[in-house]
Amino acid sequence: MEIQRNKDVKIPVGFRFYPTDEELIIHYLKRKVYSLQLPATVIPELDVFQTNPSDLPGDSSEKRYFFSKRTMNLNKCSSGYWKSIGKYKKIVAPGNNQTIGVKKSLIFYKGNCTKTSWVMHQYSLVTSFSTQKITMPEGEWVVCCVFRKKVKRPAMTLAKNISKIASPSCSSGITEIS
Amino acid sequence: MEIQRNKDVKIPVGFRFYPTDEELIIHYLKRKVYSLQLPATVIPELDVFQTNPSDLPGDSSEKRYFFSKRTMNLNKCSSGYWKSIGKYKKIVAPGNNQTIGVKKSLIFYKGNCTKTSWVMHQYSLVTSFSTQKITMPEGEWVVCCVFRKKVKRPAMTLAKNISKIASPSCSSGITEIS
Repeated sequence: MEIQRNKDVKIPVGFRFYPTDEELIIHYLKRKVYSLQLPATVIPELDVFQTNPSDLPGDSSEKRYFFSKRTMNLNKCSSGYWKSIGKYKKIVAPGNNQTIGVKKSLIFYKGNCTKTSWVMHQYSLVTSFSTQKITMPEGEWVVCCVFRKKVKRPAMTLAKNISKIASPSCSSGITEIS
Repeated sequence: MEIQRNKDVKIPVGFRFYPTDEELIIHYLKRKVYSLQLPATVIPELDVFQTNPSDLPGDSSEKRYFFSKRTMNLNKCSSGYWKSIGKYKKIVAPGNNQTIGVKKSLIFYKGNCTKTSWVMHQYSLVTSFSTQKITMPEGEWVVCCVFRKKVKRPAMTLAKNISKIASPSCSSGITEIS
């Protein structure tokens, strides 16, 4: 009746790793960056940006989380590239307005510039944050959450949302860092 | 870094009880009905049909699961009633086509016949199932999953879905059993 989800604790059947943004930043990413013990061994280390999303380990029907190193202008893999879209979303500490991290969305485009349904939410710690600039060190750990956007027919609202976040022209495979 | 979710195991932060329909039927409801040990003490017993959804214990922002006894024509509480909508959905055992349970959706209506955003998914074991008849014993345990349907503006698709499942005329508070 139990599923071995990590080395140090057995998670009963029916439980899944669905952290809030705040839990992910405070209890997993921040502790990873500072080399502290994690609550559970549930986020593997993987160079997500250099791996085709369809080749990522784990259940592709669920959101998959990975610790990956921040890279500059290296978002291309053999079959395509991740394109950053939208703006950074502040993640604030519960109970106050202190920014503890940021969340960025990316869409995977095939090499022939074809938008796919693969989405990544990249979570980063911030060393300083203002409306003008986000400072994040190169080579630092980030958490990447990769999943396939479900598109139902008819799904006018969903289609609108996807077109919104995938609207940037397909002219570059470079992720905007700030 | 741990949250006490039940008596027999500590669930690390970030994990939540999000069972599949099959997990809920096989590992929780079936074992409850047959008085077998459950994987985790995470589903409380409560007479959901006699309780106003806004008064249910737990985090109202998440899906809440309860073991409740099946009742006939007793879906009214002080502030309104649960109205069954749609048809039973078969839940089949993984790997074969054997029906192990059924899932039924209900909408909560206020006493003045006003449809609300409260939704219940009721999971039941079946003793026999055919396209003609579903046999479930009165007074047997069922699992009720209660949550508030999120309605975004604009949300044409979601609005369509809600209107579909809430379409029955508001003429009765009696849940269809078969």
